[in-house]
Amino acid sequence: MLRARALRFSTRSRPCGLRIPNIISPLWKHSNIDNSRYISTTINDVADFSLTPTLGKIVDSNGVHGEPVKLSGHIRTCRTMKKMSFVDISDGASSAVLNVIFPGEDSIANYNLKVGQSVEIYGEWRDSPVKQRLEIHCDPSQANHSVSIIGQVPDRYPIQKKATSLEFLRTLPTLRHRTRTLGQILRARSFIEGSLMDYFRREDFIKVSPPIISGSDCEGAGELFYVGSTGKKNFFKKSTYLTVSTQLHLEVLSAALNRVWTMTPCFRAENSDTTRHLSEFWMLEAEVAYVDDVRQLTTLCDNMLKSIVQDMKSHKTFSSEMESSFPNEDTMAKIKERWATFENSNSSWPTITYSMALEIINDVQRADNSKKLEWGATLNTEHEKWLAGEYFKTPVFVTDYPSFQKPFYMRKSNPEIYDPEKPTVACFDLLIPEVGELIGGSLRIHDYDELMEQIEERKMDKKALEWYISLRRNGTVPHGGFGLGFERLVMYLSGTENIRDTIPFPRTPGHCQC
Amino acid sequence: MLRARALRFSTRSRPCGLRIPNIISPLWKHSNIDNSRYISTTINDVADFSLTPTLGKIVDSNGVHGEPVKLSGHIRTCRTMKKMSFVDISDGASSAVLNVIFPGEDSIANYNLKVGQSVEIYGEWRDSPVKQRLEIHCDPSQANHSVSIIGQVPDRYPIQKKATSLEFLRTLPTLRHRTRTLGQILRARSFIEGSLMDYFRREDFIKVSPPIISGSDCEGAGELFYVGSTGKKNFFKKSTYLTVSTQLHLEVLSAALNRVWTMTPCFRAENSDTTRHLSEFWMLEAEVAYVDDVRQLTTLCDNMLKSIVQDMKSHKTFSSEMESSFPNEDTMAKIKERWATFENSNSSWPTITYSMALEIINDVQRADNSKKLEWGATLNTEHEKWLAGEYFKTPVFVTDYPSFQKPFYMRKSNPEIYDPEKPTVACFDLLIPEVGELIGGSLRIHDYDELMEQIEERKMDKKALEWYISLRRNGTVPHGGFGLGFERLVMYLSGTENIRDTIPFPRTPGHCQC
Repeated sequence: MLRARALRFSTRSRPCGLRIPNIISPLWKHSNIDNSRYISTTINDVADFSLTPTLGKIVDSNGVHGEPVKLSGHIRTCRTMKKMSFVDISDGASSAVLNVIFPGEDSIANYNLKVGQSVEIYGEWRDSPVKQRLEIHCDPSQANHSVSIIGQVPDRYPIQKKATSLEFLRTLPTLRHRTRTLGQILRARSFIEGSLMDYFRREDFIKVSPPIISGSDCEGAGELFYVGSTGKKNFFKKSTYLTVSTQLHLEVLSAALNRVWTMTPCFRAENSDTTRHLSEFWMLEAEVAYVDDVRQLTTLCDNMLKSIVQDMKSHKTFSSEMESSFPNEDTMAKIKERWATFENSNSSWPTITYSMALEIINDVQRADNSKKLEWGATLNTEHEKWLAGEYFKTPVFVTDYPSFQKPFYMRKSNPEIYDPEKPTVACFDLLIPEVGELIGGSLRIHDYDELMEQIEERKMDKKALEWYISLRRNGTVPHGGFGLGFERLVMYLSGTENIRDTIPFPRTPGHCQC
Repeated sequence: MLRARALRFSTRSRPCGLRIPNIISPLWKHSNIDNSRYISTTINDVADFSLTPTLGKIVDSNGVHGEPVKLSGHIRTCRTMKKMSFVDISDGASSAVLNVIFPGEDSIANYNLKVGQSVEIYGEWRDSPVKQRLEIHCDPSQANHSVSIIGQVPDRYPIQKKATSLEFLRTLPTLRHRTRTLGQILRARSFIEGSLMDYFRREDFIKVSPPIISGSDCEGAGELFYVGSTGKKNFFKKSTYLTVSTQLHLEVLSAALNRVWTMTPCFRAENSDTTRHLSEFWMLEAEVAYVDDVRQLTTLCDNMLKSIVQDMKSHKTFSSEMESSFPNEDTMAKIKERWATFENSNSSWPTITYSMALEIINDVQRADNSKKLEWGATLNTEHEKWLAGEYFKTPVFVTDYPSFQKPFYMRKSNPEIYDPEKPTVACFDLLIPEVGELIGGSLRIHDYDELMEQIEERKMDKKALEWYISLRRNGTVPHGGFGLGFERLVMYLSGTENIRDTIPFPRTPGHCQC
C-alpha cells in the first residue's frame, strides 16, 4: 500500500488527464480521429489512485522493523516524557489509535503539535523494547521522516482528552462525533444497520422505499409536518405531509412482494422534548403476507434482535472497539448486560396479553393497594419499563390491547381470546428494560367488510383511504407487520442515555442546528 | 416446514397466551405470586410460529413423490386442457411460479378460480410423467387436498397475463408491482442496495444518517420544499426545508469518521416532468477524508459499480430471476449489454477532462461544421449520452469542469492542469450510455481562506454557513466525495426506460398518488 501510494505521488509531474496510456482498447478504433490524444485511462501499472489506508488497516498490516510508514489522522493526545514524546493519532474509521513516538526533548513544542490538528506523519516501524509489538517512530531530523500539520486548530479546541459531558458536546454539532464515545455510537449504528440488512436478506425480505411525502394523514397520529414548494404553488395538486409511518404503503408492497422491509426517515411534529423522542427519526418497518397469528410476528422480531447481538458479539473487531470506546467500566458493564438481556437463553422471550399485564401490575407492582388499573387503562412508559426491567428482567411481548386504544387497521384478536365485552386487537408491543416500547406491530384487517366497519365507526375519510381499502377487494391476504424506532434500538445496544446522541444531527422541537 | 405448520394449527384450540410452559425460568421466581399463571412463552416444542414458507423455498425444498405440500399465493394464470387444468401460483417474494395441476374436467370453473385471487392450496408432489422434475397435484375430491379462495378479485381484475403497458400500469399504483416485470425491478433495486452495503462495508465506510429536514438552502440548488408543522407554529424556530443533498453534513461526518456513506431520500421541487427526474428520490452519497486527487474518487466509483454487476452476475438466483422476469428477448439482451458495459475489461473506465470532452465533441460529433462549442459551454444530456454511448461506448469520467458552472465548495483543479485563464475545479461526472450523468463528485475546498474567497465572491450567506465553514478552522483535512441518483442506477441495470418504474410510489410535479 505504501509503495502504491508513493508511486501515486511520483506520477504527479505528468499532466493530469493527458497521459497516453500504453494500452488502447480496440473499442475506440472506430473513429477516424487520433484517439490517443484524448484517451487517458488510469492504467494500474502507471499510477494507483486507491484511497489512503485507514489507521485500522495500518494496525493490521503487521509492519516489519525499519519499514517506512505513513499515517494521516487527527491528534488525539500529546504527552511529553523526559527523552521522548508520544502522540496518539486516530482517523475515526475505527476506534484504532496509533501511538507515535518522537525521540528527543520537547518534540511536541518544537513541531507545534496540538490536540485536534490533522497531521501527516512519515515514520518507521520499530521493535518496541518493552512491548510485545511494533511501535511507530518519527524523527523529523532523519531523511525520510516528517510531520506536517495539514489542518490547524484554534487555541481553545474544545475536544480534549479529558472527559467532556455529552450535554456539552451537543452544543458542538460539527465536532462532537470526533470524540471516542460518540464516534463509536455512530459506528455501532452503522454496524447494526448492516446486521439488519443481512438478517432480512437471509429471510427473503425485499428492501423497499415507500414514499416520504405522503398525500394523506390516514392514521390521525397527532401533529404532522406539511410540505410546500418554494416555487410552483400547489406542487402536487394536493396537501402533502411528511410520513409518520410507511405502514399503509408497505401493505401494498407486501401484497405484491410478500415479505418487505424498509429503513426510512419518519417525522412527528409533536412537542415532545424528552430523551426518547426525535422529530425526525429512522424507522425500521416490515410487513409480511400469509401471516395469521400475531406470534408469527413476535417470533420474527425475537429472532431479528437476537441475530443483531449475535453479530455484534461474534464480530471480533466490533466488540473490541466497543470495549476500547467506553473506557468507563460501568458503561461497558451496562452495555454487556443489555446485550446479554437480548441473548437471554435459547427460548423465546415471554409473551403476555395486555389483560395479563394489567393483572401483574395490579397484583405485584401495586400490591400495596395503591390504585389498581382498570381494564382499558393505558400502560405508560413507567409500567412498560417495570414489566420488562423489574418484573420479567427480559424483553417481553405484550399482545392484544383494547381495540379503542389502537388504530383502525388492526385485526380483531384471535377468537380463542376475543371477548366481545372487552374487545381487543391482534397486536403487540415489545417492551425492553430501561427503554419501554421498542417495537409495535399487529395483524392488519384483510377483510373488506371488517375494514369498512372500522372506518365508518371511526368516521374516517373513505375517499382519502380508497387506495388502501381497494387492496381488500383485489386478492387480499392475511398479513401483518411491525415498526421499530431505529434510534431507540441503537440507544439500547450502545448503552446511550439520550436519543440525541444516536443520530448525527438530531431534530427536536426548537432544534435544527446546522 | 409443513409439519411445523400443521402443528401450529393443532395448537389453536388452546387459549392463546394462557398456556403454562413446561419450563419456568428461575428468573421469575423472585416474586411471591404464582408466576405460572402469567408466564406464557412460545416454547419451541409446543408450537412453531415461523412464517409461511415462500414459494421460492418450496421450489428448492425438493419434495418427494406423494409428500403433501401447502402453497399460499396469487393465481397468475389459469389454463384448462381436456382432462386437467393448470394454475400458476406466485407469491412475489421471488420470480418463482409454481404450476399446480388439477386433474379432471373444468376444475377452474368448478372451484371458481380466477387470475388475481389469493389462494391456499393443499396438494401433493407427484413425479411428472413428462418432465424431469416433480409437479404439484391438487385433487380436492381427495381427503387432504383442497383449494380455498382467501382473497377474491373483481370481474375486471386489471392485472392479467397478457402484456400490459407500463404506462397503463402507472395508473394502478396499488396493483402494478404484482406484475412480473415491475416486481422484478423492485427486487433488483433491493439486491443492488444490498450489494452496495456489502461494498462499503468491505471498504471500511461507516453508514450514516444525515438530516432530511435542513435549516438552510446552502447550495442555492433551485426550488426547494419547505417544511412546517400543523401544530406548533415555527416548530424549529427557523425556516426549514427538505434536503437536496446531504453532502455538507457528510463532510462534517467524514471529518470525524473518515469514510462515510449514506442512502437518503432527497428532494427537488423543480418542475421537471421527464423520464429521468423525480421530485423525491434516493441518493447514495459518500465522502472520504485524506483524498487529494479526483482520480481517487473516480477509482472508488469505478470499483463500486463493477462490484454491483459482479454480484448480480455471480448470484445464481438473481440472474436467473432477471431472465425469467423479462421474457422479451430484446429487453433481456439490452440488460445484458448494460451489465457488460459496466464490467468492460479489467482496466478502469476512461477519464477525460471537460476541455477534452469539448474537443472530442467539436472534432467528431460536430465534424460536419455544425456550430462548435465554446469553452465554458454546458454539456447537455445529449452530449453526455453521445460521449458515453456513441464515442467511448463505455462509462466515461469527465473531470475538471469550469469553476463558474459548479458550486462554491469545489476545490481548484490540480496545479498541473489549472489554467487561470480558464479556471476549473477538481470535480467529475460519470457519464453512462443511454442515461448520461449518473454520478457527480469533487474534491472539496478544505482551506479556510480559499473557501471564504468563494463564499464572498458568490455573495453567499456567511452566517447560515458558519457551521460548515468552521470545519476549515478545526483540524481540516483534504477530502472529497460524490452523489449517485439511486433510481438512475436501478433504471440502467434493470433495463428500465422510465424512472417512475424504479420506485414504488413516484412523486413528480402534480403527482402524489396515494
